[in-house]
Amino acid sequence: MNEPAFRRARSAQAKQAREEAILDAARALGRLRGVRDVTLTDIAAEVGMHKSALLRYFETREQIFLELTAEGWRQWSAELRGDLEGRTQATPAEVAAVVARSLAARPMFCDLLAQAPLNLERNVSIESVRCFKLVTLDEVGLIGAEFRRLLGLTESQCIDTISTATGMAGALWQMASPGPRLRELYTSDPRLGHAVVEVEPRLTRVLTALLTGLGATSATRA
Amino acid sequence: MNEPAFRRARSAQAKQAREEAILDAARALGRLRGVRDVTLTDIAAEVGMHKSALLRYFETREQIFLELTAEGWRQWSAELRGDLEGRTQATPAEVAAVVARSLAARPMFCDLLAQAPLNLERNVSIESVRCFKLVTLDEVGLIGAEFRRLLGLTESQCIDTISTATGMAGALWQMASPGPRLRELYTSDPRLGHAVVEVEPRLTRVLTALLTGLGATSATRA
Repeated sequence: MNEPAFRRARSAQAKQAREEAILDAARALGRLRGVRDVTLTDIAAEVGMHKSALLRYFETREQIFLELTAEGWRQWSAELRGDLEGRTQATPAEVAAVVARSLAARPMFCDLLAQAPLNLERNVSIESVRCFKLVTLDEVGLIGAEFRRLLGLTESQCIDTISTATGMAGALWQMASPGPRLRELYTSDPRLGHAVVEVEPRLTRVLTALLTGLGATSATRA
Repeated sequence: MNEPAFRRARSAQAKQAREEAILDAARALGRLRGVRDVTLTDIAAEVGMHKSALLRYFETREQIFLELTAEGWRQWSAELRGDLEGRTQATPAEVAAVVARSLAARPMFCDLLAQAPLNLERNVSIESVRCFKLVTLDEVGLIGAEFRRLLGLTESQCIDTISTATGMAGALWQMASPGPRLRELYTSDPRLGHAVVEVEPRLTRVLTALLTGLGATSATRA
């Protein structure tokens, strides 16, 4: 009598297990060789499915990676807020260091942050973009609440700060990870010394100055 | 007697004219529909050449756009320095506004700034990347000299500022130009209001705070 319900449940569970396996494969390949070089065929081969079967679970390669970007936002935000919530006070430099460290510790998320607006959001359904945007806006709101509490920023200043942190994490990671061929060029030609970029120190300096400057601005206005 | 030299000159001129025509076509198509959606076949069709003939002038599609990115750096830097050089003094907010305005006025350069490290530098010869990097480092040095003169920044602060200006111009432009389908989504769903990004106001606010914060830092140290 309750067999149909049971079968549906098992099927829903099986579906979820398959989706998880696909996301695991995409995550592993993306970490290994960078998101840019991972195709749908690669993911299907890694998970041991045919490409056409995989497309029953996800719309496109881009939807898989957009899903991983949303996951990255949730995990980064949770870790960052976990650190900030334990503080009753913090200087701009301390907040900047925590934000930069938490982003630099997530190289694939940095990669995805740059890929999302360029590539991932452009080859998926409108509904997928809507879901993704709602996740990011939620997390921006939650992180912003901590920035407001610790540094007295306005909502707009919080959004500008998170946009700079994630935008620069994406851009700097791409510059810092040019592949072995270009890294060899940058380190072998002394004229190209400044082409070598390190994500965490530069992001820390930029966010420290940004938060200091925002604080200075609100202080002048107060 | 001097016919071979004449013939070489004419051939060099003809080669240059062809290269210019190819760059013009790529520039026009990139402006029209965004760099991401322009293929080598599109450029060849626009310039009225066969794709194989076009490949005698450029290595790849990416080399063509990397050449246009270098051109963008030279032109943006010249215009920005032209504005700054006329000033004997400037506040952080004034410099930030000039930088943000000059970048926002060059949408295709903003597009290219995000594409370069992700895509363009990765499908060209090492020599092409070396030439491109030397152009950008030269222009960073020239712009940095104006920042130092007007705001008393250190060399490292100049590089951080130009990196933030160009990195954020690229990232914000990609977010601000999601195509008509996503723009419709962002404006129709009231929950997605913050997904609508405007490049110039946000870049102005971020750079103003950054330069103010950098100034505050050096003031404390002095």
